[in-house]
Amino acid sequence: MAYNEEYGRYVSIVEETLTALLPEGGDVCPQDGSIPQHLRESMRYSLLAGGKRVRPVLLLAAGEMLGVDTAEACVPAAAIEMIHTYSLIHDDLPGMDDDDYRRGRLTNHKVYGVGHAILAGDALLNYAYECLLQHALSYPKNLEGHIRAVQIIANRAGVRGMIAGQSLDLLSEHMEPDADRLAYIHAHKTADLLTAPLLAAGCLAKADAEKMAALARFGSCMGLAFQIDDDLLDVEGDAQLLGKQTGMDQARGKMTWPSLVGVEAAREKSHTLWLQAEEAIGCFGEDAWFLRAFASALATRKK
Amino acid sequence: MAYNEEYGRYVSIVEETLTALLPEGGDVCPQDGSIPQHLRESMRYSLLAGGKRVRPVLLLAAGEMLGVDTAEACVPAAAIEMIHTYSLIHDDLPGMDDDDYRRGRLTNHKVYGVGHAILAGDALLNYAYECLLQHALSYPKNLEGHIRAVQIIANRAGVRGMIAGQSLDLLSEHMEPDADRLAYIHAHKTADLLTAPLLAAGCLAKADAEKMAALARFGSCMGLAFQIDDDLLDVEGDAQLLGKQTGMDQARGKMTWPSLVGVEAAREKSHTLWLQAEEAIGCFGEDAWFLRAFASALATRKK
Repeated sequence: MAYNEEYGRYVSIVEETLTALLPEGGDVCPQDGSIPQHLRESMRYSLLAGGKRVRPVLLLAAGEMLGVDTAEACVPAAAIEMIHTYSLIHDDLPGMDDDDYRRGRLTNHKVYGVGHAILAGDALLNYAYECLLQHALSYPKNLEGHIRAVQIIANRAGVRGMIAGQSLDLLSEHMEPDADRLAYIHAHKTADLLTAPLLAAGCLAKADAEKMAALARFGSCMGLAFQIDDDLLDVEGDAQLLGKQTGMDQARGKMTWPSLVGVEAAREKSHTLWLQAEEAIGCFGEDAWFLRAFASALATRKK
Repeated sequence: MAYNEEYGRYVSIVEETLTALLPEGGDVCPQDGSIPQHLRESMRYSLLAGGKRVRPVLLLAAGEMLGVDTAEACVPAAAIEMIHTYSLIHDDLPGMDDDDYRRGRLTNHKVYGVGHAILAGDALLNYAYECLLQHALSYPKNLEGHIRAVQIIANRAGVRGMIAGQSLDLLSEHMEPDADRLAYIHAHKTADLLTAPLLAAGCLAKADAEKMAALARFGSCMGLAFQIDDDLLDVEGDAQLLGKQTGMDQARGKMTWPSLVGVEAAREKSHTLWLQAEEAIGCFGEDAWFLRAFASALATRKK
């Protein structure tokens, strides 16, 4: 199938770019250029742990749709995955979600210790910018486009973006569900880092304001739907385990959409959002076939 | 005294810039643009905690020496202080140094909780880049100079710079002192972030290779001397407390220069490095008066 082949091609590019970018490790006292082996391993463990590579695939696909060369888009794509990975490492730490497992593997701090999990996260966040800047400087004719892409990634990942969402999520544990809070958490914790790769691709392509708005709308509808589906899949998983349906993600004390409006209304909300996401990229016509198929695959995913 | 007045002027610029850059906080569910109040407070607590502002003062002073406008240099200066502050917040966490106090105040995680201390550190690191990029884009004629400055800051703060030093420092706890390891830790954990503002100023000024090399050498000698002095001040503090001289920073299990070569040899090493630092900026003549006075003040500081 064309869609699956294309997805596989994008994932290969992401894996190759991440592997090539990872700094070399040195044994005991690393020489200049190489980094302490334990730090490298802790970065590598989480960065090359597989996963769907949703964010970098979005950047590569939106880039191709807009005529950006893969060679020009692959480093920004990999950098967004570094940022996503750092956020997962830090989210799993004691004091945050305090998780021992992620996707069936031990979390970073259970393998490398809390200290190095903190450092590995810091390192991946900072290294994303190192890679982005180095790459931007190698495109002097499109330097401004690249820097605007880095800026969008920084803003969406930052204190008014993903981190704001993580913060309010942490502050809302064991609180009664509240629509405004929940909308803010989902918009920032989840949707911002799904919108960033689309807008970054737009910057690289010097897309006009109308196209940027369409990409932003696609990202935001998809991000909210994605998060609601995640919560629904958790509820359904719990229901299967417990033999009953519950609207509350009680084990984690987290606020979720099903806990706010109920499972059925959450399903409807998600359905509407996926339709709106598809509508948003109508202006790109046939060129948006991959993004459309991507959204459709996400909309029907199972855990 | 001219030096003290000048230092005070630089510090005022840094404080004003940091205060102006800090995002607004919102009460319960922050509106777009403002950020959760608890996150803002945790960033603010550590960022506006006073301190000598050594790194941003170095950037402003080196910038003025090379003819860079203060308005152009103040945001990069503030951004380096954000990065320094994030590294202190994370260094103090359980799993890292696990400190309850810093400069007589409770550490960030003792006031805001471990989760928000992790997020406040992440937020400050990411926000440094947000500010740097926004500022760079407002100087289209010197965009490349600004981006090269951001790149140098990112590299020196990053996985081959400060974070590599933090990692090897953490891995070397309770080990026998080793000259190669110690040199690596000091060069990266301490000297890199003291060299970064000097080289960043050089990039803003489009300084030639000779000047960049002089600034790098000044930063690296000063950084190493600064760290040795820090360790010596700790030893002298301990000696006063314990009534004896000890070359081992035993309480923390940290590797130090005095523990490696003894107190007297460490004093000599520091003295030589301060002389080399002064020599390194000889090429700037009288224009380097402030940097010279700055080094001299640091060389004779008391805890």
